[in-house]
Amino acid sequence: MELWYTEKQTENVGITCKITQTLHTEKTEFQDLAVIDTLQFGRMLVLDGMVQTTIKDEFVYHEMISHVALNTHPNPANVMVIGGGDGGAIREIIKHPGVQKATLVEIDGKVIEASKKYLPEIACALDDPKVDVRVEDGIKHIAEHENHYDIILVDSTEPVGPAVGLFAADFYRSIYRALKEDGIMVAQTESPFFNADLISRVFKDISAIFPITRLYLASIPTYPSGLWSFTMGSKKYDPLAVKEEDIAQYPTKYYNAAVHKGAFALPNFVAELLK
Amino acid sequence: MELWYTEKQTENVGITCKITQTLHTEKTEFQDLAVIDTLQFGRMLVLDGMVQTTIKDEFVYHEMISHVALNTHPNPANVMVIGGGDGGAIREIIKHPGVQKATLVEIDGKVIEASKKYLPEIACALDDPKVDVRVEDGIKHIAEHENHYDIILVDSTEPVGPAVGLFAADFYRSIYRALKEDGIMVAQTESPFFNADLISRVFKDISAIFPITRLYLASIPTYPSGLWSFTMGSKKYDPLAVKEEDIAQYPTKYYNAAVHKGAFALPNFVAELLK
Repeated sequence: MELWYTEKQTENVGITCKITQTLHTEKTEFQDLAVIDTLQFGRMLVLDGMVQTTIKDEFVYHEMISHVALNTHPNPANVMVIGGGDGGAIREIIKHPGVQKATLVEIDGKVIEASKKYLPEIACALDDPKVDVRVEDGIKHIAEHENHYDIILVDSTEPVGPAVGLFAADFYRSIYRALKEDGIMVAQTESPFFNADLISRVFKDISAIFPITRLYLASIPTYPSGLWSFTMGSKKYDPLAVKEEDIAQYPTKYYNAAVHKGAFALPNFVAELLK
Repeated sequence: MELWYTEKQTENVGITCKITQTLHTEKTEFQDLAVIDTLQFGRMLVLDGMVQTTIKDEFVYHEMISHVALNTHPNPANVMVIGGGDGGAIREIIKHPGVQKATLVEIDGKVIEASKKYLPEIACALDDPKVDVRVEDGIKHIAEHENHYDIILVDSTEPVGPAVGLFAADFYRSIYRALKEDGIMVAQTESPFFNADLISRVFKDISAIFPITRLYLASIPTYPSGLWSFTMGSKKYDPLAVKEEDIAQYPTKYYNAAVHKGAFALPNFVAELLK
């Protein structure tokens, strides 16, 4: 018997993966959580029926949400991640030699537990001495900090359920206050093919708050449409002004100095969304 | 009743699209041909169970297989396409002001017929006076021409069935001879995530024949993994040496001067395939 997991990515399109086993399913306080083994992408974490991360392609998302900002900021010592309970962004952050502390604020402790148990390749850095893991509401945490972080990454789920507030202008204003005077934020902002309105709205909101706002792209096979966007708000540093020789050297599978620049080369239909 | 079209893109992963109707199915001399209406991507052409093109995302593939070479060559007067019976590459080629003649050599006349009937937005240029449409074997056509074309685009189906010979080193040598002394070839070369071996092999083969060989990428939602590669072999001109101000201006939805450069910024795991 062949077993396939099918995710409806929109009402009208889906991805379907052959699976070998379902390792874990759970209804947490916040969402439905599942861990399954797929043949194409390896082990996969699914929240509320949406693929969050897989062993085979997680490197793209986790490197790209992290290293662009880490290499734009000249001294990214104090970095935080909202969401991202799988630990992948944290794993990338502590690769950067300048980072002294990385704080993870995840609202759903069960995501952290499941990731540590079933996805150790991704969650491996959560016990690092530089890492502070907090099971808290990210919106509340941000509101309680001022002039504190160098970089804040919004590593959220899709803008439904617990993550809706992470796509709001009020939240971006709160992030602005929680950042130091030269701080940078990056948020994952969905697919240019399927979420055009969301990208336009978020870019406009962040542009109204931060002096420098930039959108960049990466290719992630298990995410809807395969093309994903990230929106950066920066108080001082422009990611396009970074010199190639200033990009820190550490092992990555997707990110490099050429990708740092190339990811900002937007196709016309994407650039149109930002006008 | 909901109807869904599911394509197994590999043995272990597929894309599934809600459809409203099947407009046409046919067994041609060379392959199974279908035209269906999908809700997410609009009308879709399917050959041997593989999505070839859709109304909503065809612009990416057709612009990117064409304009990178057209803007690398300073005088692309005589351009040919092997395969590409839907006419999308031809439509893009004749946008370039320098092109005097565009030749389409498609082995399966039924693809041209179905595209003209069901996909007029894509096939619209096939009756242009600059365009010469030939229902012939592309391999034979190339073998019969020498020092003739400025640009040859290999707009093939997947490397199974009738297209196998279009991925062979002998064919690339034949293309080299059919090109003028400063000619350029571009071939579609599948997904870096799913077809790593093919990309490595083709890049090595083309590098052994052409002095300049470059791989570039584009994001195409309906193609396996969503990330697609194109391999360019060039006798004289380097696509990375093109000056932004020399890129011809005409309407496109994906390609632009920034994308021309950014598409060559290869993630590490892709660059590794070319070593």
